[in-house]
Amino acid sequence: MGAVTPPKQDRSRATRQRLLASAVACLAEHGWAGSTVTVVAEHAGVSRGAAQHHFPTREDLFTGAVEYVAEERSAALRALPVQGRTAVIAALVDLYTGPLFRAALQLWVAASNEAQLRPRVTELEARVGRETHRIAVELLRADETRPGVRETVQGLLDMARGLGLANVLTDDRARRERVVAQWAALLDEALG
Amino acid sequence: MGAVTPPKQDRSRATRQRLLASAVACLAEHGWAGSTVTVVAEHAGVSRGAAQHHFPTREDLFTGAVEYVAEERSAALRALPVQGRTAVIAALVDLYTGPLFRAALQLWVAASNEAQLRPRVTELEARVGRETHRIAVELLRADETRPGVRETVQGLLDMARGLGLANVLTDDRARRERVVAQWAALLDEALG
Repeated sequence: MGAVTPPKQDRSRATRQRLLASAVACLAEHGWAGSTVTVVAEHAGVSRGAAQHHFPTREDLFTGAVEYVAEERSAALRALPVQGRTAVIAALVDLYTGPLFRAALQLWVAASNEAQLRPRVTELEARVGRETHRIAVELLRADETRPGVRETVQGLLDMARGLGLANVLTDDRARRERVVAQWAALLDEALG
Repeated sequence: MGAVTPPKQDRSRATRQRLLASAVACLAEHGWAGSTVTVVAEHAGVSRGAAQHHFPTREDLFTGAVEYVAEERSAALRALPVQGRTAVIAALVDLYTGPLFRAALQLWVAASNEAQLRPRVTELEARVGRETHRIAVELLRADETRPGVRETVQGLLDMARGLGLANVLTDDRARRERVVAQWAALLDEALG
């Protein structure tokens, strides 16, 4: 018997995932203007035709890529062991540093100037935002039936997003850790 | 006597300010990729040569524009009447919605992919950030000699930045007002 060839659908799925990962990497590194389908296909080691077979338009490829990585991150968050609120808050803030946030930010800002991209990204961000909120409420064991709790958690995620933005141009880790420690204490008291 | 012609230096200053205001407007509307010196000069009703006389490079024009508007905003903040913390927090958050934040965000994100722009914008953001922090501490009458107070104020400005980002693609005002009201109450307690 010769070498085992993976079934066609497995190869197709592998190609698709390589394209999605490459799209996120290119977006984070080169921005929207520098991220064409051709650049991504090359990065993934896939022909342009194969890339277009999986993702007919540039918008499909990049919104698909950000969604895919966001879903992976959500799954990782949901799988976290039960732990104290400070650790949970640090994990939530970590969502907004690193390549996924950088890629999403590039897409977000490009969408604000591109009519074709805007509705897709707006819808995607709303969906990802709701899911992140839901996971945060659960991990923090926050009781949203109590007045103000919903807004407390929302403000935490807004702060996390702002910390992510502060980390785009410089390594902001040292400052971020101090802010997170302090806000974790404030939240723990507020959430009861 | 004929019509009064303004002195040459006044006209020069007026041209400069029109260019700065146009640069912010173009950046907020078209993004970095769509904002060339030519586009800004046209928007300002100034020749390209005159624009280049005031700002020799594209980087000079756009970092100058964001700095100019940031300074105007800082001056307006410092001139606010003494008022309660909730009003101060709302005014601080307002800094991060509207065209200045949109323009700064475009510049910020472009700088993450452009080696020529990056050191200029990094330095500018650090300077504007320190100044905003200083003004916030003063307006909030926060005592930074108390442990945690510095980080509480920093976290508030990070939250404001994150709220600004959430407002880029959609009108997020209703949600933002509820988050600001809740966090204003939590922060008032934390700041004592």
